[in-house]
Amino acid sequence: MKQLVFLAIFASAVFGADQMDDSKPATSNVMGSQYPRVHADLRASFKLQAPDAQKVQLNVGGAKYDMKKGEDSNWTATSVPLVPGFHYYALIVDGVAINDPGSETFYGVSRQYSGIEIPEAGSDYYQPQDVPHGYIREHVYYSKITGAWRRCFVYVPAGYDKNIKMRYPVLYLQHGGGEDERGWPIQGRVNFIMDNLLAAKKAKPMLIVMDRGYAQKPGEPLPVRPPTAPAAAATSPLTGGNGAVASGATAAPRPAGFLTSTTFEEVVVNELIPNIDANFRTLTDRDHRAMAGLSMGGMQTFQITMKHLDKFSYIGGFSGAGGGMGGPFDAKTAWNGVLNDSAAFNKKVKLVWLGIGTKEPERMHASVQTFHEALDKAGIKHTYWESPGTAHEWQTWRRSLNLFAPLLF
Amino acid sequence: MKQLVFLAIFASAVFGADQMDDSKPATSNVMGSQYPRVHADLRASFKLQAPDAQKVQLNVGGAKYDMKKGEDSNWTATSVPLVPGFHYYALIVDGVAINDPGSETFYGVSRQYSGIEIPEAGSDYYQPQDVPHGYIREHVYYSKITGAWRRCFVYVPAGYDKNIKMRYPVLYLQHGGGEDERGWPIQGRVNFIMDNLLAAKKAKPMLIVMDRGYAQKPGEPLPVRPPTAPAAAATSPLTGGNGAVASGATAAPRPAGFLTSTTFEEVVVNELIPNIDANFRTLTDRDHRAMAGLSMGGMQTFQITMKHLDKFSYIGGFSGAGGGMGGPFDAKTAWNGVLNDSAAFNKKVKLVWLGIGTKEPERMHASVQTFHEALDKAGIKHTYWESPGTAHEWQTWRRSLNLFAPLLF
Repeated sequence: MKQLVFLAIFASAVFGADQMDDSKPATSNVMGSQYPRVHADLRASFKLQAPDAQKVQLNVGGAKYDMKKGEDSNWTATSVPLVPGFHYYALIVDGVAINDPGSETFYGVSRQYSGIEIPEAGSDYYQPQDVPHGYIREHVYYSKITGAWRRCFVYVPAGYDKNIKMRYPVLYLQHGGGEDERGWPIQGRVNFIMDNLLAAKKAKPMLIVMDRGYAQKPGEPLPVRPPTAPAAAATSPLTGGNGAVASGATAAPRPAGFLTSTTFEEVVVNELIPNIDANFRTLTDRDHRAMAGLSMGGMQTFQITMKHLDKFSYIGGFSGAGGGMGGPFDAKTAWNGVLNDSAAFNKKVKLVWLGIGTKEPERMHASVQTFHEALDKAGIKHTYWESPGTAHEWQTWRRSLNLFAPLLF
Repeated sequence: MKQLVFLAIFASAVFGADQMDDSKPATSNVMGSQYPRVHADLRASFKLQAPDAQKVQLNVGGAKYDMKKGEDSNWTATSVPLVPGFHYYALIVDGVAINDPGSETFYGVSRQYSGIEIPEAGSDYYQPQDVPHGYIREHVYYSKITGAWRRCFVYVPAGYDKNIKMRYPVLYLQHGGGEDERGWPIQGRVNFIMDNLLAAKKAKPMLIVMDRGYAQKPGEPLPVRPPTAPAAAATSPLTGGNGAVASGATAAPRPAGFLTSTTFEEVVVNELIPNIDANFRTLTDRDHRAMAGLSMGGMQTFQITMKHLDKFSYIGGFSGAGGGMGGPFDAKTAWNGVLNDSAAFNKKVKLVWLGIGTKEPERMHASVQTFHEALDKAGIKHTYWESPGTAHEWQTWRRSLNLFAPLLF
């Protein structure tokens, strides 16, 4: 398989190891960096030069490790075997959570974080392959609702530029809390997943629009953590579904503004969709429009699609569902009673798809499970899928997209 | 002027200051971050929460500042007024140079760095404006020469998707040492500069291809610093023109591999150009192809164009020229004597353009000045321009592009 140098992911394995073991530099490292390294058994080794530090720790995969200082002033640590997929991680120098200079950075937990890619054996659906490649482009549009320009990314499938009379269906695909429109293109590897599905004829060619799931009218507050939150905020760098920084964070939790504010919904329905339809060769009827999202983005997806079924006929929630964060969900009253007539709903909506990782925190699992059971009870047809062995992390969401996209259009 | 939320630059000024002075959050901050802040007189204030740190310093604009610890465990410092433009900067916690969690990160000095944007009064050529917007797209191509997939970014001017019979000239535009293909799209704001020039009809519509200026054949070493270089490497985070990390760095300087290896030249000439011509509606003759670059990218530009004048007729060096890093330059022998017949050269090459900031380090200034004088002596027509008051930083290169692009095609 040919390796693709792409987005923030650089193959650096060719530059010569400085360890005589089976480990290789992580593909998420900056160009040429030898650390962190991933071993064949999926342990990962980290290194930081810090001659004057008193204490250095590693925080990865939900655990902290004390790093040991060597004679060369390099601090090192090796983790237990990590779950395959993408993990945000931090090094903690005298109490301050810092980025590893050897790693690329990834926007999550409302800041730029180090991240490490742990390969999944035998799994190449999210890896670059020698197939026709679509591309990702930036698209800007002016929002009168927020009084600001906004940016989204658009995945454009291979052939779009040549089949100039063809029109395409559109999937609107959202990131999680504390992330932004860069999440799916960079952490999510959306282009590789779609390129591979399309080359295998497992999915229909579609445009995928990835917008920023934050929108504020002038004066409306942004639900975001204080920028100087202490190192403890890095304890569990989850893309917390309720807008909080992370479980166990000592920073003030962000208000769940995205569930009470309708600004993002207004932007999507009244500005984003019309703008995409005006600027790309789209199919503009509801039969050819889908929305999905992860965690916070999943909750936003239900908030928006259920109130606008005239615009959407495919709905996906990846580790984020319709009932918010595990509170009681009343299918009778939700979204103006749209679920009451299950026969009509099942006829109108072509797909409701729910996914969750088996290793996700209990509150995440409960929120999706509760919603799944409520839909069952209400007679709403839907798919419920559990990702074996993955957490509230991007591997769950890559797998979800890989299963969801083939069911569309 | 409407403000554009774009790339890594987020307008965060609307979210309410927590200081009762004239300062505003830097536009280079992550979403919602109140620090760093820029004052009306261009001083900048920085803040970091670090309860357990012994010593915290700020390193910005070529100077170090001791930060002071407050009762709330926040360390703060305010710089002297900074030169307008983009500055890489670091916070130093007990000797370790770290990224500021309040800042976006920018790939430079061979790692992800914090950066701060200092506004230039009355200057909006690189700011988003309410004009037609082109877009930047990722483009991948397989390189047989390096045995790897490569990525470049392509600026596509407004109208390209609609004027489907029009073909476009191409500018190949390179970043500096320790940076990559993200430099011009993010730090350089190439799309804003071009959108504004095109809207004012000051430049001709063109495609701009921004490739990664590093290329290695299998087994060929990458000229890059060790990833665990000490904090001192951050003393002066310049995009060092000779491939070294930074002046004053204690890390081993990188070999100037880009000047001795011809791999990148081979990739550009034999793979990149044919691939772009095959995948975009380009004008493929030499009259419609230009190349320019900054620092290391400027030197690469001369290395490549002078040996391939059958392919290029416009040449630009921004803080990087044809003579390398200030060594003796012999116009008689350089590039197989292509400069010997000045009349023929001046007829064939439509533009040779050199730019340099007046505040750049002496060795940078000398290298461009030496080359400029040698061209004069050899009777080679060219433009030499000095950017008033700017250093070996992106404001010099934004200005250079803004002057260079209108002279093309």
